[in-house]
Parts: sequence; C-alpha cells; structure tokens
Amino acid sequence: MTQPLKIGIAGLGTVGAGVVKLLAEHNRLLSLRGGRPLKIVAVSARSKAKKRDIDLGKARWERDPLALAKAPDIDVVVELIGGSDGIARRLVQTALRQGKHVVTANKALLAHHGAELAALAEKKECILGFEAAVAGGIPIIKALREGLVGNRVRRLYGILNGTCNYILTTMRETGRDFGAVLAEAQAAGYAEADPSFDVDGVDAAHKLAVLTGAAFGAKVNFDGIHVEGIRRVTAMDIEFGEELGYRIKLLGLARETRYGIEQRVHPCMVPLKAPIAHIEGVFNAVVVEGDFVGTTMFQGRGAGQGPTASAVVADLVDVARGRSMPAFVVPAAHLADMKVSPMARHFGAYYMRLMVQDRPGVIAAVSGILAKERISVEGMLQRGRSQSGEVPVVITTHETEEAAMQRAVARIAKLKTVAEEPCVIRIEQF
Amino acid sequence: MTQPLKIGIAGLGTVGAGVVKLLAEHNRLLSLRGGRPLKIVAVSARSKAKKRDIDLGKARWERDPLALAKAPDIDVVVELIGGSDGIARRLVQTALRQGKHVVTANKALLAHHGAELAALAEKKECILGFEAAVAGGIPIIKALREGLVGNRVRRLYGILNGTCNYILTTMRETGRDFGAVLAEAQAAGYAEADPSFDVDGVDAAHKLAVLTGAAFGAKVNFDGIHVEGIRRVTAMDIEFGEELGYRIKLLGLARETRYGIEQRVHPCMVPLKAPIAHIEGVFNAVVVEGDFVGTTMFQGRGAGQGPTASAVVADLVDVARGRSMPAFVVPAAHLADMKVSPMARHFGAYYMRLMVQDRPGVIAAVSGILAKERISVEGMLQRGRSQSGEVPVVITTHETEEAAMQRAVARIAKLKTVAEEPCVIRIEQF
Repeated sequence: MTQPLKIGIAGLGTVGAGVVKLLAEHNRLLSLRGGRPLKIVAVSARSKAKKRDIDLGKARWERDPLALAKAPDIDVVVELIGGSDGIARRLVQTALRQGKHVVTANKALLAHHGAELAALAEKKECILGFEAAVAGGIPIIKALREGLVGNRVRRLYGILNGTCNYILTTMRETGRDFGAVLAEAQAAGYAEADPSFDVDGVDAAHKLAVLTGAAFGAKVNFDGIHVEGIRRVTAMDIEFGEELGYRIKLLGLARETRYGIEQRVHPCMVPLKAPIAHIEGVFNAVVVEGDFVGTTMFQGRGAGQGPTASAVVADLVDVARGRSMPAFVVPAAHLADMKVSPMARHFGAYYMRLMVQDRPGVIAAVSGILAKERISVEGMLQRGRSQSGEVPVVITTHETEEAAMQRAVARIAKLKTVAEEPCVIRIEQF
Repeated sequence: MTQPLKIGIAGLGTVGAGVVKLLAEHNRLLSLRGGRPLKIVAVSARSKAKKRDIDLGKARWERDPLALAKAPDIDVVVELIGGSDGIARRLVQTALRQGKHVVTANKALLAHHGAELAALAEKKECILGFEAAVAGGIPIIKALREGLVGNRVRRLYGILNGTCNYILTTMRETGRDFGAVLAEAQAAGYAEADPSFDVDGVDAAHKLAVLTGAAFGAKVNFDGIHVEGIRRVTAMDIEFGEELGYRIKLLGLARETRYGIEQRVHPCMVPLKAPIAHIEGVFNAVVVEGDFVGTTMFQGRGAGQGPTASAVVADLVDVARGRSMPAFVVPAAHLADMKVSPMARHFGAYYMRLMVQDRPGVIAAVSGILAKERISVEGMLQRGRSQSGEVPVVITTHETEEAAMQRAVARIAKLKTVAEEPCVIRIEQF
C-alpha cells in the first residue's frame, strides 16, 4: 500500500470542520481518486474546548499551529486561520521552508504576499494550493492555471462577493434600500456584524488580485486595484438601470490596456443579455476571455462550508498525486511586475444620476459641462417622482476617459441646482 | 534545458490546424507554463497536398498515422482523426501500447471504448487526455476529475450540442419551424449536410457517455443512454413552453436512481429561472451537482477551432508536466459496471401537446386515460388557433413514471378525436 498523505490542519472554524467532515465521509473514494489515503495526523485551533460537530479520530492536537509546519510526520499543512499577516503568514512560510506542501483558503494572505510565497514554494519544490481562496465552489484557479493554460487571457471579470450579490439581488427584488437589506442580511447570517470587508469591496479585491496574478502570469498586486463598494447604490438606481436594460452587479475586473493591467472592483451596470447579469443571490461567477477559447463562464457558490471544503480537498488530491504547477501559471522568476493601468485612464461608458431642482436651465448647465469635457451623451431619462421639488435625472454617456468624467462630475456636483452628490456607476459592455 | 515534449499530430482538419497555430503562436508562453517546450515533430493527414493555412516548420510528414504511434522520437500522439473505430482506434491503442501518451478529441471513440482505453493507458502508465472530446471550450473533464474530485456527483446535465442549441434558439427567436431553421443553419455552416448525428442526439449522447464515466467513476456505457433528438420539436411547443415558464433545450442528463445510473438525451422543458435556460446559440453548458460543492455551472463554446485547440493544448501541458490522473477519476480496476436505470422507470413531469378536434368530450376522454394510469394533471392550456378545425391542447402532469406516461400517450394517440401523434416533452426541475 502506498503511504498515506499526512495532513495537518490549522484552524477548525466552519471551513476546517468541513474539510474534516469531507475527508471522513469520502475516505474510501478519496484514496482511490488520490491514489493513496488522505489522513489527518494533527490539527491546531484556538480553542480545544470549543464544541465542534466533528470526529477528529486519532489526530494529534497541537497547541501551536507552527508545530504543524515543523512536525516530521506531516506532508502538507492546510492553513485555515486567515488574515494577511501574523500567524497565518508565519505558518505558511515555515511550512514551505520545511519543504512541506501548503493548501490555504486565505485570500488576504495571497493578495498581499502571493508572489513572495509562490517563489518560496518553487524554491522548495513544494505545491502551494489556493483553490479555496477564490470562489470556493468554482474551480477557477485550476481553470486558469491548467484548463485554459493555452490561452492569453484578454479580460477576466466576476461576481466575487456573495454578500454584495445577495444584497443587490434583494434590493432589486424588494425595492428596499441598502441599509435595510444589509440589516436583514446580517440577521440572516449572510453578512458579518462588521460588513465593511464585504460591502466596501475589499474581499472582492483580494480575490481579484489572486485571479489577476493567475490569469496574466504577473506578480499579485493588491495595491494596484481601484476599489469601490456598494454602499452608495440605491434602489432608485437599480430601477433606472433595469429600465435602461442593465443590472447592477459588484464586479471585479482585470484586463490589459495599453498602459498596463487595469484592475478594478466597483458596482457596474451589466447588460441584461449578458449571462453574468443572471447570477443572483449568494452565487459567484467568473468570466474568462481567452484568445483561443473565447468566452467561458464558471459559476457556483462562493463561500460556505461545503464548497470551500470541496476546493481544499481538490488541492489535497493534487498534492497526493504530486501534480504541481507554478502558483501563478509561470515560474516565479518569470512573473511580470504588474504595470498598473491608472484608473484615470480607464475608458468606458457611464451612468450618472443627479437629483436636480425641477426648473429650466439645469439640463443645459449639466450638458454644457459634459460637452466641455468632450463627453458625448448617449441617453437621458427624466421623470418627476419626488415630492421635495427635486427630481432624478439620469444621463448615460458614450465611452470616455475616467479623468474627464470625474472632472465633469466634480463640476456638476457644485451646481446650485444639483441637490446631492451625483451617483456615478460605470457601464460595462461584454 | 529540459527536453521538449515531442508531439505527433494525426489529423490536420480544423482542430489539427488550430493546435498547430496555437502551439506556434504561444510557443514561448507554453514553454514557461508547461515547464518545457512543446514541439511538433511529426504530423499525418489524409492529404499532404491540401492547402492549409498553417506552418508545419520542420515537422516530419508521415503517410501512415500509425507511424506516429511507433516513432521513437514521439512522446505523445494527438489523435484528431475521429470515428469510434478504424484507424483512430488503432492509432490510440498502438500509441498506448508503445508507452506513448495520447491526447484525443474523439468523443465517439471514448463513448464506445473509453473503459478499455483507460485500462490500457493505466497499464502502460500513460496519460489519456480527452478534454477536447467534450465541450471544447469548457474544461469540464478537468473539473470532474480534479476540481470537484472531493464530491460525490448527484446529478450532471448539460447542453452538449451547439448545433441543436442554435436551432432551438433560432426557432424561438424567429417562430420558424425546425426544417426551415435547419436549412438555414446548414447554409451558415452551423449544421452538417447530413445533420443526423447532431439533431438526432447522437453527438450529445457520445459526450454524455464520457461525462457520466468521469462523474460517477463508472465504465462508459453509451448503449445505456436513452436518446431522442429535436426533429419533433415545433415552434408551437416552444411558444407554449415559454407561456408556461419553460424553455426547450436538448439536454444530456445523468443521475443515480435507486435502479442504477439514468442517462438520457432528449428535449427538455427547463424552467426559465434556471441559469441553463439562458445558454443560447452555439454555446454549451454543463451543470454538476456535488454533495459538498452544491450546484456549479460551466459554460463556453462547445466546438470550433480555437476552443477545441485550447482543450488539446491544456492536455498537452498536463503531459509536459507529467500530471496524471486515472482517465475516469478512479483506477480502471475500480470502475463500476454501470447498472442502467431503465427509462421505463424514469420519474418526472411531462408536457403533452395534442391536436384535437374541437368538440365536446375530447378532454374528458384524455383525462380519463391519464386518470386510469394514475397520472395527475398539473395544468391545461387550450386555445383555438387552427383553421382546420383542430386545436392544440397542452397538458402538463405532476411527476409520474415514464412507463405509465407512455401507456397513456399510446392510448391517447388512438383516440379518433386526436389528430396527430401527441408531442411529449419531459419537464426537468432543477
């Protein structure tokens, strides 16, 4: 009999417990599929006393997670602690330095230290698996590094945060505003008590950073991402969007421009005819446009115990079979330094919704400002709905440069007849 | 420098030419991604004289494709000849027996001889790659064997034939009937001169057979598939379907029932709210339901030069890196003999459209027959549209057994007041 793959798991929260359950439930199946048994030899978590609905069998309990990285009887360390620095980072570094394979679900860690860890893994000829770090239920890292490996990726985009997608879907379905839906999502457990990480786009940006690295064979560059969250999206804008044939989604997008690689996370108006417009609720989706394969889309649950455990175990089977691949598609020495295409150079169409005083001359003033920036208006919607004397005016533009649009918006916001900060949402065409 | 991977290509049609182009265009990229250069050392095709828009460089021309299987300077044979038997099969067998890896796009070959070839590959410790055989633009074989390897698959279904999906989409969009749209598709090159392979469901069944094997770790069993094509779908049924909240798709489906594995290819009524209902035109999609991952969907182009070449090259990179996996998820010795769940035992809902004479008592007679088979009616649509005195009547049923439904339909067809063969389409709920 072949030697079992000896696993040490650090972190026994929702995901860790899921991995333990999956390995137990599919024990026999996985030894066939992996070519040898997958065996948990040791675990570590903050509290040993905490009640967990899992059977750890004969697995050793380590008080210090770092002990897993050093234990001679462990082949692969599964890092499920989380956080971009601190103990998670030390654990992964130590494990790799000791020549152990690492499987992690830690997107923050990879977004901030991905290139460095990839180089370390390569130097030690170890596998660094992180399928679970991005959209757990979607084997997208494998798709980028292996299934679509024959392509130069032209563009990549996705719905990368289930909480935001759930909130936007519910806002549309119920007509309620962000605050109310967020509160409900928190009560239902779909959003954290401190929702900032999700609703401000940080979580999606972590995932985008990792995807961009794997898609373009470049050093992960989290700081190069332009990030906006969904707090400013209103039910009114969702409704106007639908009228115009768009659905609002928080997307993470990456593409090559003539200035470098553009990475951005922000609410987008997406054409209703695009398949990604129909990914609703907590589901995630990633679209990859390759030069040979054309457009492909992958969808599934982005988080949760089962989907994330499924991704961790897929990486463990790769380790069991010794299937390796550079962490970000090409050897670390060949990873490109990512030249950031500046957001000011972004070129695209825009949706702008103003609240204006319902009197003559307002539209002329707004149009004049846009004209001065050479921004061409594609359409306009005006409708009296407000009891306060202010009415919403929606303007959509043809493609223009972000810098010009921002200058125009700043000037429009200062008009006395414009009541509040304009709501600007980028329009994406696929 | 590492030794290049030495490739022999048999077949230089659309796909073969695409592989040659891709390997040339991404030459440098692929040596980084594959860990060594990917080099075509020899090719073989029916006609050397034929004009092809490709540069074969210094590749040797072999008159006999079998020479590729025997050449000592070839590591991997790419079989792009096609056909379930004859030269394609001999080539793959010979290559594997000679200890060469094989990459093939040949779904017919795998559907008929998959288990045997998997066993042979395993015995010789060779890789048998067939990502290109099913839905070229979708890395679904890799997803089933690797990305979702931690799951027991509960159900799998997909749109596996782009020609049928294009015809059904166009029928819906234009309201025209099958014959007219098929003729147009043939003129546009989306359908073959002899369309039977596609429109009668055989091509989809080949792909389903391969997917089922990989999803359930069972011996590929093409003969166990119940196959119906789309010839009998009318524009009227498409319209009625939309009215009832369904879209008609030709699906291939596989699931475990208490009788074994049910595999079927036939037109389905799919709820409009299901994402797969929105996969239109020549696109393919595959949905996998796993016990841990939940529902995942993969979509992309199913055929064409670029997507299929992309899949072939992904397999070649796996070979270059020595990444192997049993062909159908588990070692050949452990592949289950597939127990066929008989179609008569299929349990599901049905749509039935009758053309009946518009006179009293017809519905009573039809209802009586259904009641006798204990088939419970879910809804009924009746509308006068015909000038001939015959009117369509649509009946949808609750879930019932196929055998009962077939008995009822046979009796209904014999009613004097029923003008033509009833149109029966299964309803799928996801």
